[in-house]
Order: sequence, then structure tokens, then C-alpha cells
Amino acid sequence: MKEHTFPSWPDVADQLVAVAAGRSAADTIITGGIWVNVHTRETLPDHDIAIKAGRIAFVGPDASHCKGDTTKVIEAKGRYMIPGLCDGHMHIESGMLTPAEFARAVIPHGTTSMFTDPHEITNVLGLEGVRMMHDEALMQPVNIFTQMPSCAPSAPGLETTGFEITAEDVAEAMHWPGIIGLGEMMNFPGVTAGDPKMLAEIAATQRAGKTVGGHYASPDLGPAFAAYVAGGPADDHEGTCEADAIARMRQGMRSMIRLGSAWYDVETQITAITEKGLDSRNMILCTDDCHSGTLVNDGHMNRVVRHAIDCGCDPLVALQMATINTATHFGLEREIGSLTPGRRADVILTSDLETLPIETVIARGQIVAEDGVCLVDCPHYDWPPHARQTVNMGKALGADDFQITAPAGANAVTANVIGVVENQAPTRALKFELPVTEGRVQSTGEVCQIALVERHRGTGTVVNALVSGFGYQGPMAMASTVAHDSHHMIVVGTDTEHMAMAANRLREVGGGITIFKDGAELAMVELPIAGLMSDNPASDVAAKTEAMMQAMRDCGCTLNNAYMQHSLLALVVIPELRISDLGLVDVRSFEFIPLLEPVS
Amino acid sequence: MKEHTFPSWPDVADQLVAVAAGRSAADTIITGGIWVNVHTRETLPDHDIAIKAGRIAFVGPDASHCKGDTTKVIEAKGRYMIPGLCDGHMHIESGMLTPAEFARAVIPHGTTSMFTDPHEITNVLGLEGVRMMHDEALMQPVNIFTQMPSCAPSAPGLETTGFEITAEDVAEAMHWPGIIGLGEMMNFPGVTAGDPKMLAEIAATQRAGKTVGGHYASPDLGPAFAAYVAGGPADDHEGTCEADAIARMRQGMRSMIRLGSAWYDVETQITAITEKGLDSRNMILCTDDCHSGTLVNDGHMNRVVRHAIDCGCDPLVALQMATINTATHFGLEREIGSLTPGRRADVILTSDLETLPIETVIARGQIVAEDGVCLVDCPHYDWPPHARQTVNMGKALGADDFQITAPAGANAVTANVIGVVENQAPTRALKFELPVTEGRVQSTGEVCQIALVERHRGTGTVVNALVSGFGYQGPMAMASTVAHDSHHMIVVGTDTEHMAMAANRLREVGGGITIFKDGAELAMVELPIAGLMSDNPASDVAAKTEAMMQAMRDCGCTLNNAYMQHSLLALVVIPELRISDLGLVDVRSFEFIPLLEPVS
Repeated sequence: MKEHTFPSWPDVADQLVAVAAGRSAADTIITGGIWVNVHTRETLPDHDIAIKAGRIAFVGPDASHCKGDTTKVIEAKGRYMIPGLCDGHMHIESGMLTPAEFARAVIPHGTTSMFTDPHEITNVLGLEGVRMMHDEALMQPVNIFTQMPSCAPSAPGLETTGFEITAEDVAEAMHWPGIIGLGEMMNFPGVTAGDPKMLAEIAATQRAGKTVGGHYASPDLGPAFAAYVAGGPADDHEGTCEADAIARMRQGMRSMIRLGSAWYDVETQITAITEKGLDSRNMILCTDDCHSGTLVNDGHMNRVVRHAIDCGCDPLVALQMATINTATHFGLEREIGSLTPGRRADVILTSDLETLPIETVIARGQIVAEDGVCLVDCPHYDWPPHARQTVNMGKALGADDFQITAPAGANAVTANVIGVVENQAPTRALKFELPVTEGRVQSTGEVCQIALVERHRGTGTVVNALVSGFGYQGPMAMASTVAHDSHHMIVVGTDTEHMAMAANRLREVGGGITIFKDGAELAMVELPIAGLMSDNPASDVAAKTEAMMQAMRDCGCTLNNAYMQHSLLALVVIPELRISDLGLVDVRSFEFIPLLEPVS
Repeated sequence: MKEHTFPSWPDVADQLVAVAAGRSAADTIITGGIWVNVHTRETLPDHDIAIKAGRIAFVGPDASHCKGDTTKVIEAKGRYMIPGLCDGHMHIESGMLTPAEFARAVIPHGTTSMFTDPHEITNVLGLEGVRMMHDEALMQPVNIFTQMPSCAPSAPGLETTGFEITAEDVAEAMHWPGIIGLGEMMNFPGVTAGDPKMLAEIAATQRAGKTVGGHYASPDLGPAFAAYVAGGPADDHEGTCEADAIARMRQGMRSMIRLGSAWYDVETQITAITEKGLDSRNMILCTDDCHSGTLVNDGHMNRVVRHAIDCGCDPLVALQMATINTATHFGLEREIGSLTPGRRADVILTSDLETLPIETVIARGQIVAEDGVCLVDCPHYDWPPHARQTVNMGKALGADDFQITAPAGANAVTANVIGVVENQAPTRALKFELPVTEGRVQSTGEVCQIALVERHRGTGTVVNALVSGFGYQGPMAMASTVAHDSHHMIVVGTDTEHMAMAANRLREVGGGITIFKDGAELAMVELPIAGLMSDNPASDVAAKTEAMMQAMRDCGCTLNNAYMQHSLLALVVIPELRISDLGLVDVRSFEFIPLLEPVS
């Protein structure tokens, strides 16, 4: 790994002092800007910022005493100087991009610090996968802090992941240079029940003096929530209404409110500040999950801040929520999050605080983007072959592997079918009567087949089931190695031959998403790294993803967020019915149920 | 050392979770109070707090599910429940009390957390003295966090301390369990000049992830201040006007505003919040220095909060400045400073948020004071003999040691005289014409003698000089081993016999303050520990100190703060003229000057 060289404040304090005192020359001076001060919540016109060794040495009305012959001058020309934006909680894998390509995509949007939980890769490559993400993160010209994933598997006993995370893994990772804390503790029933493994992971993090991320995805704000808080998580981003945000802040957590590609939880919660007038220091903006298309077309943290302002939040308060509040939460207040001496010189120049055009982005003292164009190299980690060859099915599959056999002699069966619901993450547990031909269950009409193909240990396991709601017509199949959270392969199709073609195609390319129709491939998104990420630019991935969604529509699918629905069908923690490598899971009772009802 | 047994949050998380969930019984429940929430800045009536293992397990409208047969119930009866108060920066030695007795004095005032810099003892006993203070601090039933002293000596080259602190000492102390950061970096000219030793001390603290205390005692807010900020100090309590407070907060420091026994810096600075409307999160209340009399008669942090409210500050904002703001600054936000799960159960019950009567004080879940009476044991450290025998003069002194010899043949001399100025810390450099009798300079009228008696290394050194302004009449002398910052012995008197008596008396008792008049001792404050502190109760020390000040008046002294003036006469960092063990120091030029002007 080649870590992006960056000295600590004490490493260069003598240089910063010398520049501030006027004894030595700054590397760069930004002149004549409006200093947006997120400590005092003020705007102060006609200020200069002097930068040395990537850090801020001086901020004041006149930095001319810091200027030498070699000092580069950036004229702010009366624009606002705001701190680089921080994303308080996110998953890089959601962009289907490596950390390097994710960074390249968000730098022009002014995001200079990210707190990322590489939860997805952990299911595929374990602690080593976390380390790879962590190492590529440290190579970037912006700040990517890694949260050590806490919950792999997400649902112990209901699925088999490629790897599992232990409390010892957590304790070990706390010593890595880029680890900032524990990733979202999703097993909230475990914490509330006092599960020793979950408490041990939290304890290892607390004892290392780091921040425990929370994830309490329940509307119950009674004793169950109180017990979760008492367990130690320091923040939560699963709130969806004002009462959720208020409860979290009152209990001494930071309320992270998110605007992701498919999360809209800012407008409903920011009223705790804008209407209820509570102290805003404990509210933090984040994205959680952003697709490549959002990054290419809409923005990143700049989109979230703008949205918060559109929701009625004072622009300075909204900026605090994406800068100093985040930095303080992670114990980095003297490192990032404000434009003050000693901090990393992460600065955005913008001509308007409400519409927030990101005109110039400076990270660690270097101009990294101008007018939406990334101007800096984002180095790639040398991903080893086993990180690029993770589709380990054991063998090529045939149509027979996807056949659903009916009980002997049955002409029809009653099947438990996963019912996809438009615009909702939860599915329904449906029952359909289906015909049997030559001993095989036939999917017809609304119902098509779904298969979970094991891909981590080469077991050859294919779990077959049925799904309704996609609307696919004609012979087709779609397969994806993005299959939350254990990331086996999900194949959905109307035809077993096509299902085999799609699965084998992903085996061949090392993972991604493919759609076959009428015997030919309609679309392909290659995700060679862990079957989850591309190391191509976001624009390429966004274009291919768009083509993939068009192909889904061409196959008859009319769902909004159709691909997300596909990729979540193995997420065995959200009701009602899901598929895993161990069978069909009723997530209301956390029990396996048979695909076919017993013949009565 | 017997550290006060207190488990960490991860040590007892399972218990806290079980209580919050209702599976196990709380140790104590406080019922029916108004929850003062310093995170959201709200008051919430009708709330309960459940406590387990000294920490808060649950806060909500009803904790009855946490109640068992053995649960102790404290009825708040509609009173406010506020977090225990935090003193953001202070020196225990200023109370002339050991940490134990200081704690005993302030607990009834609701102070449950203190951030103390044992700077004075360091000059006498070095790093070992810091450790003794640190160890006694950890034995207390309330939270005393130690800031490692940064500047002993305060004025290198101008005085000889008992011990010196090195950057290696600082690095070592950062591993001690009770060290929270670096004590006030008083050598601000050194930092601004890039002094490698000062920067090394700061670096050792920053690398340990701890907080660097500041002390920038200059009105210059230009590049010199900027350079100090760039050097790393994270707070400052030397501001005296609104512009000082604002400058510090804008530059990303915390502005600590103090109300000590003789510091009145709250009213002039809190307007940054109350009038200018700046974000209050970066302002912190502290005392810096409190005498025993203040603790006995007026209060401690409760006095400061009340005063801030009297200055027009919203009570909830004032409370934040003495609780959560302080906790956040020191990275202890999840440990102290709010009434939320996991935190130490440090709770005050008060019936009024403006007058702030401290009715019940709970620390770590135990009632420690009720209606002004301390109900808890504050254990004493077993101070070793060499910490109690620090007046090492080498020999008993005689009147001759205090004679000032005139140049041969002179009938009169022109002397450089330290001029004490009423109500000011700076002195004046005066010149007086004094008569000579039998070859000896005679102090007369306004002028009396002052001597600095070396007491750390037994050198027998006595530096004689002259001082004006005390107004002493008749034969008398006063001696004190509290003599900032190097804490030798200062003797002031009108008569050399009395000066010898006073000095020898302190040698006999092991340090303190004594006054002799007409051949007999008028008053004595024994300070056997390092010659700085008593291990008797604050009320005793306050009474003896009051008697001592009365004795000063009985000797003709009319100064306000007369004793403070006495004890600061060796503080060779404040202009204009001071005395040290190395001679008479002109603090305007940092040069030694002769006592007597050359005969022209």
C-alpha cells in the first residue's frame, strides 16, 4: 500500500507556527474570501487563509505576512470559503465503485471526508476485505475513515457468509491507522438482549477510544430502544421521523439524518431543529447509500446540504451538520471540519451558500476539483487475484439446477412466493397455486423463479424459490452478485435455461449484473472486485447501470427501483419472506419454511 | 494508592442493558424530576433516572420497569435534575488544600468533575509531585482529571525551581490513568517563537490523543496569537474581554471564561453569546484559582454558573458551559457532562435553575452531599515524608542573613524597589533614596525588606531586596512558602530579627505562612505538604487564612488581596520588578538588575 503522504499536526507544528508568525512562507494563500466559521456560526468577509504542508497555518483579515516568493495565491474573489464536506456514515460499495473511483466521483461535489463502513465486502472477503478497502482509502487525496464492520453475518443461522467477523477481529482492526470506530451495530435485538458477542465488539471499540456506530431500525422508542442506547452505540441513522431524531439526541446519541439515492430521511427529521428549536450540535447529515447515477447526475454531500437548506434549515446550521458536528462526533474536531489553524486544508469555494455551487475544491492544500472536474489522481489499490475471483460456484450450472420438482404425482402445488411490493423494502409472503408439468413446478403469469446460487465456498448449492411482482415477460433471466447482505448470487428469471446462462456468465466475468433475454445478453455491469465493485469510473458504471435498468424494463419490468428490489431479496433481516443459501426464510418468525405447501 | 473503584462503561454494559430492558433491578432510581437535557437544551418534566453500578442505565418518563426489591428510590419531587458541574481548568493548590480536602469542600457545591493542573507542586517536587496529586485525585469519589504541567520552570534562566519538567516527562505522564492532557502552556512567547521543547510537549500530548491546555496572556490578537494557535493549544482561559473570547472561538479554540476568587472574566466575555449571539458550544466556565475562603463562604462551580446567569446568560446555556461543553472538549462526552445512559451518574437536584441551590449531590450513583453537607469520605493519600519536609534551607537563618550591605563609605544609597500596586498583579520598578547606618541599608517609611530564601536544595541562598506598598509599621515579618511559581520562601519585613524568626518558623513546621510582630507569632497557616497545601479541612484553612490576613492588617497593611500580593512577588513573568533566587529581575527586559544603583 502506498499511503497518501500526509503529516500530522505535531509533525509540522513548527512550520505552521513559523508561517503564522510571518517567519516563513506559506505554500498557498487563499485571499479575499468570506470565512464561513462553523465554530461561531458566522460569516466573516475579507479573510485570507494561509496553508503550509497541507494544513491551515493562519486565518485572518490579512495573510500577506505569510506570503513568500514561492507562495501560490488562489483568489477567492469574495466567494465563501467553507470547510470540505463530511459524510458521517456511508457504504462505498453502494456506488458499485472502489474507494478510489468513489473518491474521484465525489471530490468535485466537495466531499473531502467520508466515514465508510465496508460491510458488503466483509461478507465476501472477511477481515482481509476490510483491510483492502481501508488501505485503498488511505491512498486517496481526501479523507476516508473506515468503520470496522460489526455484523457479518447480519443474520447468524439464517445465512452463510463468505466470512464472519468476531470480536477479536474488531479488537485487531482498532489498531489499524485508518479505523475510526465500529460500523453500524445492526444487530439491535442482540444488543438489547445483551448478546455477549455484540457487547464484546462494542467494548473493544470503546476501550480503543473510538466511536460506535448505531443502527436501530425499529419504531419502538420504549425500553428496547433504551437498552440499545445503554449498550453503547453513539449514533444512529435509521430514524425516519422527528420523534426518532429527538429521542436519539435526548439520549445522548448523535442523530444522523440521511439523504441517499433511495433514503429520504432529512425532511421528516430536521424539524427537530427548524421547528422544535433544539440544539443542533447533535445532528449530522449523511448519505448512507448512493448509487453511481446519483453521484454522476445529482451530487453527494452537497446534494444533502442543499436539501437540508431547502427543508428550511439555516445554511450555516446545515453546514455545521456536514462539517464540525461530524468531526466532533468522531473525535476529529482538531483535524477536519473547520477552517482553523492546524486542521487539514480542506476548503470549498462557492459563490452562494444556499444553492451551494461547488466551484473549487481544495483538499490538504491542493486544488483537487474545479467546476465539477476532478483534477487529482485517485490511486488504485493493487487488488489481488482472489479479490477479483470471488464467484466460486464450484461448477457451471445447467437448466436442471434451476428446476423446481413437484411432489410425485401432483398436478398442481401451493407455493410460498416472495411478493415484491412497489416502493417498499419489505416483501409479502404470498401463496400461489401453480401447475405442474412433467413433475416440475411451472412459474406462470405474475410469478417467476428466483434462485440463490452459493458463490463463496464452491458448494454448488442452488436454492430455488418463486417471486412475484417483477412483471417479466418471455424467456429471460437476470443475475447479480450484489445480493445483500451475504452477497451470494441472486438469479431471477422466467426460464431455467436463461437462469443458467446468466449465472454462468457472472462466473465467467467474476461478478456483476447481467440480463439475458431470448438467448442473448441484453446488458452487463461488470463488478470484478468481490463481485460488488468496479474500478472503472463512476460515469461508466452509471451508464452501464442505466442500460441494465433499461434492459429490465425491456423484459417487462415496471417497478421503480427495480434493481434494488432484486438485490435485496436475500436480505434476511427485513420481513416478510426472503431467500438465503439455507432456504426460504420467513423473516416475521426468523424460521425456514418450505417452498411448497404439503399436499393436503 | 487505593484508586476509587469504578468500572468503565464497557465493563458494565451488560448490566446497564439488562436494567434498561427491565430484566434486572437498578441500584437506585431518581423519580419524578425535571430532566435538564444539555444535549438538546430542554427541560423535560416528570422523568426518572435509573442507576446501576454507578452509571446511568435509563432515563425516561417511567423507570418502574427498572425497579426491584433492593432498588433505592430518591424522590426528586418535581425538582430539576442537572448533571454534576465540571470545572474546565483549575489549580487545586490555590485552595491550599490537598485534592481530598478540596474535593470535600466542593462536593456540596455540586462540582463532580475537575480538570486540574498541579503546576505548583511540580516546582517543588517535580514529576513525582504530579504523580502524588494524580494518585490522590484518583482516590476521590468524584472525578478529578489531571492536566500534566507544561511549564516548570515558568521562566527558565530567571529562577531555579526544585525540579524541571521535560518533554520526556510529558510523554511518560500521558500513559498515567488519570492524565487528561497538557496543563496550560504558559510559555506563549516560546510557542510563538517555535521553541522546540514547548512544541515537543504539545506534540507528545497530541500524539497521545489528549487535550492541550492553553494560556495566552497577551492582548495582541495579531500574528503572535495566530502563531500560538497554530502551535496546538486547544483552549485558553486568559481572555479578559469579548474580543478575546471571540478570537479564540473563531480560531477553533475553546474559550474558557473564569470566575475565581480574584478572577472576574465572565461578565466581560459572555457577551459573545448573550449579545453577539455566537454559537455557545465553544465556551466553557472555569474557576482557575479559588481560595479556601471562597469555597467555604461562596461556592465553587455553582457560583460561576449563577454568575453567568446573572450576567444574562440563559440558564440552560450556562449549564451547558459547565457540563457538556467541558466534557466534549476533553473527549469525555460519553463519560460525564449529561444525564444519559452509560455516563457516570453524577446528578444534582435543585429546585431552581436560576438561583441554583445545590440541594442533593449524587456522584457515581451515591448521594455525596445534601443541603451543603458532604456525606462521603474523601480518602487521603499517604504523603511520604519527603513531600512533607520540603523546606530545605540548609541551615537556620540569623538576622545577619537579611542585612543589606551598603557600599563602603556610603551614607545613603539609591535602591531599586519593587512597588506593589493596589489591585493589580503587575508591580512597578521604583527607585528610593535610603539611609545607611553602620554600613547597612535601612528600610524606612513606605519601604521595607523582602527576601527570597532558597528552600529546595538547601543552598542557604538568601536574596535580599526592597519592596514598597504594604504599609507595615513596627518590628514585624511575614514569611510564606507559597511563592509563585518556583515556591521558594518569600519573607517581607521591617526588621531583620523578625525576618529570621519567620523564616526559621516555616522551616520548623515544614512550610506555610507565618507573621511575627513584636517578637511573637501573630498567625500561622500550616501548609505541610510541599509547603503549599494542608490536609486539614477547608474550613480550618479558611479560618487560619482569615486570621493571617487580619494579622497583616494588624501590622499596618491596608492592601486588598494583601496575601496574594505577597505570594506573587517572585512571579518573574509579570512586569515590572520581581525577586527570584537568582536576584532582582526586571521583567520588562527579562534581565537581572542590581539592588543598589552604583554610587555616582
